[in-house]
Amino acid sequence: MINDPYRDLESRFRRLGLLQEASGFLSWDTDTMMPEGGAQSRAEQQAALDVVCHGLLTGPDLPDLFAAADAETGLDLWQSANLREMHRAWIHATSVPADLVEASSRACSACEMAWRKARPANDYPSVRPLLQTVLDLARQIGQAKAAKLGVSPYEALLDQFEPGGRVKDIDPLFARLSEILPGLIEDALAAQGARPAPLRPPGPFPVAAQRAAGSALMEKLGFDFAHGRLDVSQHPFSGGTPDDVRITTRYDESDFARALMAVLHETGHALYTSGLPAAWRHQPVGEARGMSIHESQSLLMEMQLCRSREFLVFAAPILRSCFGGSGPEWEAENLYRLGTRVARSFIRVDADEVTYPAHVILRYRLERAMIAGELGLKDLPAAWNEGMKSLLGVAPPDDRQGCLQDIHWYDGGFGYFPTYTLGAMTAAQLFDAAKRAPSVTRGIARGDFAPLVTWLRAHVHGLGSSVSTSEIIVRATGKPLDTDVFERHLRTRYLAA
Amino acid sequence: MINDPYRDLESRFRRLGLLQEASGFLSWDTDTMMPEGGAQSRAEQQAALDVVCHGLLTGPDLPDLFAAADAETGLDLWQSANLREMHRAWIHATSVPADLVEASSRACSACEMAWRKARPANDYPSVRPLLQTVLDLARQIGQAKAAKLGVSPYEALLDQFEPGGRVKDIDPLFARLSEILPGLIEDALAAQGARPAPLRPPGPFPVAAQRAAGSALMEKLGFDFAHGRLDVSQHPFSGGTPDDVRITTRYDESDFARALMAVLHETGHALYTSGLPAAWRHQPVGEARGMSIHESQSLLMEMQLCRSREFLVFAAPILRSCFGGSGPEWEAENLYRLGTRVARSFIRVDADEVTYPAHVILRYRLERAMIAGELGLKDLPAAWNEGMKSLLGVAPPDDRQGCLQDIHWYDGGFGYFPTYTLGAMTAAQLFDAAKRAPSVTRGIARGDFAPLVTWLRAHVHGLGSSVSTSEIIVRATGKPLDTDVFERHLRTRYLAA
Repeated sequence: MINDPYRDLESRFRRLGLLQEASGFLSWDTDTMMPEGGAQSRAEQQAALDVVCHGLLTGPDLPDLFAAADAETGLDLWQSANLREMHRAWIHATSVPADLVEASSRACSACEMAWRKARPANDYPSVRPLLQTVLDLARQIGQAKAAKLGVSPYEALLDQFEPGGRVKDIDPLFARLSEILPGLIEDALAAQGARPAPLRPPGPFPVAAQRAAGSALMEKLGFDFAHGRLDVSQHPFSGGTPDDVRITTRYDESDFARALMAVLHETGHALYTSGLPAAWRHQPVGEARGMSIHESQSLLMEMQLCRSREFLVFAAPILRSCFGGSGPEWEAENLYRLGTRVARSFIRVDADEVTYPAHVILRYRLERAMIAGELGLKDLPAAWNEGMKSLLGVAPPDDRQGCLQDIHWYDGGFGYFPTYTLGAMTAAQLFDAAKRAPSVTRGIARGDFAPLVTWLRAHVHGLGSSVSTSEIIVRATGKPLDTDVFERHLRTRYLAA
Repeated sequence: MINDPYRDLESRFRRLGLLQEASGFLSWDTDTMMPEGGAQSRAEQQAALDVVCHGLLTGPDLPDLFAAADAETGLDLWQSANLREMHRAWIHATSVPADLVEASSRACSACEMAWRKARPANDYPSVRPLLQTVLDLARQIGQAKAAKLGVSPYEALLDQFEPGGRVKDIDPLFARLSEILPGLIEDALAAQGARPAPLRPPGPFPVAAQRAAGSALMEKLGFDFAHGRLDVSQHPFSGGTPDDVRITTRYDESDFARALMAVLHETGHALYTSGLPAAWRHQPVGEARGMSIHESQSLLMEMQLCRSREFLVFAAPILRSCFGGSGPEWEAENLYRLGTRVARSFIRVDADEVTYPAHVILRYRLERAMIAGELGLKDLPAAWNEGMKSLLGVAPPDDRQGCLQDIHWYDGGFGYFPTYTLGAMTAAQLFDAAKRAPSVTRGIARGDFAPLVTWLRAHVHGLGSSVSTSEIIVRATGKPLDTDVFERHLRTRYLAA
């Protein structure tokens, strides 16, 4: 076997990739199809699969195999990148002792369950002891991984979602955003206030019609239903594999826009998944680069493209036809105004494009302080409210609308939040670059999004994990990620008359 | 580990059981949810899981563990039975060389694909060479397993579906049936001809109404939707696990009975699955005993209970309500006559309860001869037609309605067919015994099927694989399986006025 160590590794990671896909479909089933009575058993099935996957990733002969493969000559660029990604997965899998992984997994389950009760009850104190355990274990995991990755504990956690993500890169971007946002929000609200309020199309909007509208727009964007599905779950998500991408939404018959925007968002994720390099299927280098690029693909579709005037001119007749709507409330310009409302609000997931970064920057700062041991959980609610006040100008009336609102920390997901806003900025920068290609702009103008998707396939999707996030951005846009394009996008969309 | 070899085996088989459940859910997904474009990838995911499962079942230290566990004292009856079932699974997994398993798996896939084209084209010669390969490999597998099981090659194949099934037990039963069936069919047709033909409720029957009727009756029979689902697939089946049983049907808007009877049939399977011994979940002894007992549970519901007058008196108002039906065609007696029509037909899956055994006995005789090398594939169509003529009095006009109709052989499933009729006989004998309990009979009379299900839980479901098929039957009914009760059932239902 050691005769061709790289090939040996490829075959092991291929098996791992296939088993992870199997596990992914079980997760999809859990969230979309499984009756509630199947939950405990499902958790045990997943745990059994996890053990097998973990075993494949921590085989005692892997260090020798990696060393031998590293010494191989003649690996091409993709193979070398694949080896690097294998090694990265191996470090994440082996740097944390098994008992710590297990303790954390148990603590996260318990805390998440408590959080599901504490949030509606607005009872942060009841969940705080469990969150403390989760945080303590997350800090230990961060420290264990930090030692192997040569980064800080917070960066080690961030690296799980955003490979190569470093605070030295994020800090200046977020600093600049938090500098410009307060004025920008102020100005956007003023501009909005100077215009007549847009009209709300009257409901109800039957689920079947919403589904038809969503599916129609998905197909227009390039989603292939021979290789994917649209289903319902409590929270919209995108899962599956390149040949079988599965997205979900949830319907509210009084408001079609929420389900529809979720569909368009998840379609962006799905197009990324389906465009991953087919030749590297089931290998680490063939996987999505990380969460900020993933989020950039969903936000490019949802925010950059689908909330644009050009898109709504194209989409308005489809919506009118699906919902049997007519009148001024169904005009593209009115729908555009509805889709670009700005408001200072307490809840991140309801936030608009302009205020959203403030929610994220708050969480980024707080979670860094918690992992660094500089912010105690007793002080979290107050720190939250102060942060909201300073970043957004409003403070929530209670913890339910404050530090209890997101599942992330209660489920151990420290280091995830910054990817939302990094994704939003990346989306703006990539869309701007894509529109420099005349075929893309011409296509969008006539409701043909294939040139845009082709551009994304070539510049983002098809690269898989062969290069770093920053390299993808530099190659595609000509410069590293900065705030300029995002800022210009916000000013153009929200401050113009 | 060898300190407690039995516990060690339990923990390995628990993991195996969980991974097999995971694989089962992927199969369910393949048949119900997966877009066609996901097929190739799904096959690879399943194959990766198969490799892991096979590895668990063929570990090099298992023979020592089995030997040590066999020497353990203090195992209780269930533990001993569990050990026996583990050993049985191990023999089936290890008795066939890996390259033979793989060759057979590939040959079956290729042959099945060819069969899917050959059947509608009525082109047996085109698929015969592939079937020859499948048959040759099945004979080799039968021989390999026979050597380890101490049975004949055909019995070794049968044993995969029907543990402990032996031709010396089946032959006299099938001989008696083939003796009485021709006269019984003749008489049933005569009795039927002497009555006015029943009326067909006029369609169409919308899918939603059919689904509502099916779900309502499922719940009445004891199916718990908190632990299961009803979906659509090309062929009805039952899958899932005791806490998450998933059954399917397929709808024809011109005929509600087909989908409904499939639902009732699969509900019988589902109730068996959900009643398996919870304390032995994920262990071999906690699994269903075999295919004849499984089929007995589906046929007990579909044929014995649901096509009875008593049940239809209860079900008729539910059907009228779901379909908005009224008039004589919706009367219980008319529905009973519709549900018990007898006809000499060519197609097994469309056959009624009286003629069905003839279809099965034919296939049992032919597949035994094929495995024994006594019937060549060139002669299969002629042998089929002769057998039909002699057993049922009709011969199909073409192979499409003859030896091409069933997937089983083309997919390598030799040894499966007899379980259908063993199941039908077992269903009759079990139902007869259950009705000796006054609570069961009283319950059925008032549309309360809980006492029946309770009886089945105690006498069949809850035994799992702790005892043999014949032991289940003897304990529950007081005697080994024979043809008497089945024959009496057919005479009572089909020959009475």
